[in-house]
Parts: sequence; structure tokens; C-alpha cells
Amino acid sequence: MTAGFGIANLPYGIFSTDVTGPRTGVAVGDRVLDLAAVTGDPIHATGSLNAFMAQGPAAWAQLRRHLTSLLTGRAHRGVVERHLLPADAVTMHLPVEVGDYVDFYSSRHHAENLGKMFRPGSPPLTPNWTHLPIGYHGRAGTVRLSGTPVVRPKGQRKPPDAGPSLGPSLRLDIEAEVGFVVGVPTALGESVPVSAFEEHVFGVCLINDWSARDLQAWEYVPLGPFLGKSFLTSMSPWIVPLAALEAARVKPPARDEPLLPYLDDTRHPWGLDLTLEVRLNGELISSPPFAEMYWTPAQQLAHLTVNGAALRTGDLFASGTVSGPARDQRGSFIELSWGGASPLELKDGGTRSFLEDGDQVTITATAPAMDGTRLSFGEVSGRIEPAT
Amino acid sequence: MTAGFGIANLPYGIFSTDVTGPRTGVAVGDRVLDLAAVTGDPIHATGSLNAFMAQGPAAWAQLRRHLTSLLTGRAHRGVVERHLLPADAVTMHLPVEVGDYVDFYSSRHHAENLGKMFRPGSPPLTPNWTHLPIGYHGRAGTVRLSGTPVVRPKGQRKPPDAGPSLGPSLRLDIEAEVGFVVGVPTALGESVPVSAFEEHVFGVCLINDWSARDLQAWEYVPLGPFLGKSFLTSMSPWIVPLAALEAARVKPPARDEPLLPYLDDTRHPWGLDLTLEVRLNGELISSPPFAEMYWTPAQQLAHLTVNGAALRTGDLFASGTVSGPARDQRGSFIELSWGGASPLELKDGGTRSFLEDGDQVTITATAPAMDGTRLSFGEVSGRIEPAT
Repeated sequence: MTAGFGIANLPYGIFSTDVTGPRTGVAVGDRVLDLAAVTGDPIHATGSLNAFMAQGPAAWAQLRRHLTSLLTGRAHRGVVERHLLPADAVTMHLPVEVGDYVDFYSSRHHAENLGKMFRPGSPPLTPNWTHLPIGYHGRAGTVRLSGTPVVRPKGQRKPPDAGPSLGPSLRLDIEAEVGFVVGVPTALGESVPVSAFEEHVFGVCLINDWSARDLQAWEYVPLGPFLGKSFLTSMSPWIVPLAALEAARVKPPARDEPLLPYLDDTRHPWGLDLTLEVRLNGELISSPPFAEMYWTPAQQLAHLTVNGAALRTGDLFASGTVSGPARDQRGSFIELSWGGASPLELKDGGTRSFLEDGDQVTITATAPAMDGTRLSFGEVSGRIEPAT
Repeated sequence: MTAGFGIANLPYGIFSTDVTGPRTGVAVGDRVLDLAAVTGDPIHATGSLNAFMAQGPAAWAQLRRHLTSLLTGRAHRGVVERHLLPADAVTMHLPVEVGDYVDFYSSRHHAENLGKMFRPGSPPLTPNWTHLPIGYHGRAGTVRLSGTPVVRPKGQRKPPDAGPSLGPSLRLDIEAEVGFVVGVPTALGESVPVSAFEEHVFGVCLINDWSARDLQAWEYVPLGPFLGKSFLTSMSPWIVPLAALEAARVKPPARDEPLLPYLDDTRHPWGLDLTLEVRLNGELISSPPFAEMYWTPAQQLAHLTVNGAALRTGDLFASGTVSGPARDQRGSFIELSWGGASPLELKDGGTRSFLEDGDQVTITATAPAMDGTRLSFGEVSGRIEPAT
């Protein structure tokens, strides 16, 4: 985890050691800065980022300036050095207490691919897709830290030619996504305009929204995905602050339809030029481009709150599967193997349509940093274990 | 709130007074017993029921026995009397810290009615409906106490003959539901069989899952309801413990399809004979029968966890709209007015298809109690305020 954790990044996470309980750390190269110790501020010893995230953008900026000064100034080198721990000697924890978890569906390539497979004969995009960022609530209680074993879920599956039966998912999949963590809450009835994105969102992480496609296909009409998604959602340990992503901001793709004013992001483009990489058992199988996303996180948040839904500190919303136009830019196996019709050919001579027991999936991402380097989002990974 | 809060009920809630912060109380007639004071147990001064609910069935039963003894024994009358406060002198609070909120769709009459209206020309029930209790995750962060004003939500609505526009919902509705609160959590990977329902579920409340039908109709394909539901879900202040409902247990209706073993409830029938009453501005407009529900809460919980999804203390799952076969047993306005085609005629000479600003909706329920009386679930109510 060395490269990409330079001074232009400074992502936050929660770690513990043999002698300290969970507390806030900042990744610096291959080390972790103990924030509670170096700042003396008890807010960094609470075991989650929530209290700090709730303080808002002024406090976030102040700490970032302080850290930059500490880490670059010669005067502080001795002080800082004492509180830098080797990253491989600490245990990471889920960085936030998740409030609500919302999953969007904002990659046009992904939505079109799934539409073609799930609703053959219909237009790939539903009529609403280009008018609003479609989303739904996921299960917050099963958002877990990267590395949590992925026990193959059981559920009802229904083959076309037989009745439903209960059994282990036979179409276990990933969804390579980018997650956004809310810091500053809102009251019931408030909305967050596209222009106020930075006043509420603290930072960005990687999400693998594990999906059981056979469970999902049988259950999802009419009320959406449920057990096909709720068994586990994995989150990367490091939250990259929004302030580190200024150089990664890009204009989103042109939109097909005129945007309603509350979604108009002309003056506040929040496209982000992240490149994701998906590895299966170490082999790079896809490089999804986040800059291609049709709906930006600022639009997602504006939509999520336009009805007055309140935000809580720790709310997590994810982009939906990130897929680009090319086959090797797809962020799920159902797309990579086209529903199993065209299995992925692996370098070891094997093939893969969906995940097998023992498979390890790791998603990483980088983005341009302010200092000309690329910053890292670390990784979100998981290994498939057999159904119990 | 006098009738129905007799010794056979003893529901739990959270109250505060001018001199005490939020703490646990038990409704006894028209008074509230201060549990923290009468037991001296700090678990009842935490401001939510969660810590007590997490203790499990043995602790719940022990306290219930103790309360019954205190309230019926002459020896304790003086002690108890000091800690009984007039109900109209206390302020109620949301009784639980909600973990995840799941909403089911388990009334056949409701699902058929909505299927006919939302998907005309298709069979009213989707093929999965009789095989599994369909559900989805709602927004836990907008579950609020009964009485919270219902500000008419804004969102995208699309009339058949025009493009989408942003504006206040024109089809604001209720969903009269029964909610179930989880006390004892599970680990990731565990499932809760139908037979273990009582080991995890603490109690029962009333839910009004306010719904903006126009927002919902435009957004819900393919990932389910989102903004049409997420602006507010109201919860009654009193949680009736499962132990109070022994006399209300009934066999659920006959099922059309053989049940998969994990949903087979032959030996653990958890139908419940609650009668709901829905009042609009004081006028009784519907009496939905909960005993008619096709899927029981024990089946809902078994389904929710069959994929290994973990439970947290405070998880809330609701039945879905309770509707019976008769028109005056329907639990939503979209059903009562058949989508506006057949407005409800009110006693004051007015009519109603959907809710108007100023409307007050109150849902109550009663059930048979062990002592031959009927016990009350109190009420969940809300008044519609204009969009902001």
C-alpha cells in the first residue's frame, strides 16, 4: 500500500494495534499516522470517523492543513515520526458507522448491459433512466470491511424450466463501485443542491457490492433487489477526502435529455477521473473508467434528498457498478461473461462466468493527484467461501 | 390512551418529562410507569429500548413477570404509585434506534390491487409472490415518531402525456402496516428459522409508510421504490411485547403453492389477529384485518436472513400495507379510491382520492389479550403539511 499514499492524498481510516483500541489513522506511504496521539484530540479516538466527519468542511480543511504542515515541515519530524506505525503492523476496521446505504445505477454501459440481459426484447434502458439517477436502499448492517470472507449466500433460485428451490447462489458476482460518505447531516425536509455537495460529503472509498444474480433475477420484480445483495457489501478501509480529488474532477459525459434544474450540474461538474482495476486471483480482468459515469455523485445526492429525506453522518451512497464501453472495462462478471454465454478466459487456461469458491477478487483505483502523481484508494477485496 | 393498556399489555416506550431525559416507560392505563426509577436499572435510562431489547427473551420475560407482580400485588402499590406519571404529562420519543428498515409486501389483497393498477394487462401478482415474501430496504434514517409532520415531498412525476417535472407529490398516500422490532442480533452468515422468531423479535408496533404514488410510479422500475417512500415513515410510540400477543396468534390463510421448507410455518404459525383502523380527520375509513396476511412475520424474518444477512438490535421490518378483501378493509388511499377513479366519499360531503394538505391520518389497532380484553397498540398519526 505504499504507492499513491503520498502527501497529496492523506486518506482516513480506523486502525488498532496490540496496545491501542480502534482509533483514527492517516495513511502515509507504507505507514499509518496515529491521529489521536499526534493531535491529542479525543475525537480521533472514538473508533469511527463519524464524529470528525460531522464537524464539517472547515474542520476537515483545518486538519488537512495541519497534517500537511506536520508531514512536510522539518520542525515536526521528530514528533510525527514517533506516531507513524508500520501499516502491516496495524489492524484496520470499518472506517464509518454506516447510517443508510443507498446504491445507485449510474453507469449507462452497465445499465444497458443488464437491461439487455434481464429484459431481452425491451429497450435496454427504462424510460426514467436518462431523467433521474435510479437508486435504491441497500442493507447498511451488512456493509463490512474489505477482507471479510464472502460466504456464498443461499436463497431462492428459479431455473426457467423448473420451480424455485433453496440453495447456494450459482451466479455469484461482484459490482465494482465507488462509494461516497456523508459527513454533515441534514434535517428532515432539507435538500442538498448539486452546488452543496462539498458541504456534506466527506470522502470517497471503494465498494464491492457482492451480488447473487440468480437470487436477484427471481426476486427483484416489482420491488427491487433484496437478498441478492443484502448478504455482504465490502468497503475499502481508507476514505480519500474530497479535498484530495481536485485534480481528478472532470466534466461528465454529455446527457441525452435536458436535465431538470435540480440535476443541472453545468456549473458544478463532479465527474471524477478514477480508474478502477478488478483482479481475479491476481489477474487483471477489467479496468472500469469512473469518468464515464452518466450521473455524478453530486447529482445522486441532490436526487436522494430532493424529497426532503434527511441525511445522517455516516450515510453511504455508492455509484452503482462502474462499466465502460469496452469488454475489459466492465465492472461485473455478468457483463464480462455476458450472463455466462461468453465466459472470461483466464491466463491460467481456465474460464470464469461467475465466482467459484476460493476465488479472490480485489478492486483498486487511482486518480490524478494535485502534485502530478496518482493517488490510491487502496483496495477492497474478498475471497469466496463455500455456502454453509 | 386508556383502554387497551391494561395489565395484559404492558407495552414499552421512551418518554421524557420536564425534569428527566428520555427513558423507558411502560403504558399502564392512562399513566406511564417510569422503569428506570422503579427498577433502578440504568439500562432503562439509556433513551432507547435497544440495550434492553438486546438482552433477549429471558430478560424480557423476567421483567414482564416483575412488572405484573408490581402492578397487581398490594405490597408494592405505594412504590409503584410514586413512579406512575400521567400519560398526558410526558413527551414520547422514537422508542428504538432503528438499524435497517425492511418493508415487506405480504398482503395478497394489497399486492393484487396494486398489481392491477401499476401493471394493467399483466397478472396482478408477479410469479414470485406466492413463493417468497417480497421485501425491500427502506430508509432507516427517516423513521420518525408518530406525530411528526408529514411535509408533502417533492420529486419527479411524469404524467402519461408529458415529460417528467419536479414538483410536490399529487398522489400522497398512506400505507397502514404492522412493524416488528428485532431485539437479539445475529452474526453474518446466520439464518433465523421460522421456529426461532420469538428468540429474536422483541415486539410489535404500528407503521405508516407514507408513499408518494406519482414519484413511486415513475422511479420504481427496475430497482424498486426509493424517493416515493424515503421522505418519512412514522412509527407508533409503544412497542407491544410479543409475549402479550399469545391470545392473538392465529393460523395464516391457506397458501396457493407448497412452501419451501425454510418458509414452512405449519408448526410455527405466526398469524396475528390484529384489527387495524384507519381514520381520516377523525372519520373511520378502513378496518384492515392483519389476520388475512399471506406471509407471517416469522416467515418474513426467515426469508430476510436465509442468505446469511446479519440482524442488528433495532432492525425494523414491516408487514407491508394491510388490506382485506372488502373495500373498507384497504390500507391505502390508492386502493380505497382505486387510483383516483373512485374517490372515497366522506361523511362531511367531501371526497378524497389522495391526501390533501391539512389532512390528519391516524392508524390504531387492537388484538385479543390473554385476559379476554382487547389490547391496544396505541396509534401512529400524522398531519399533511404543504410542500416547502
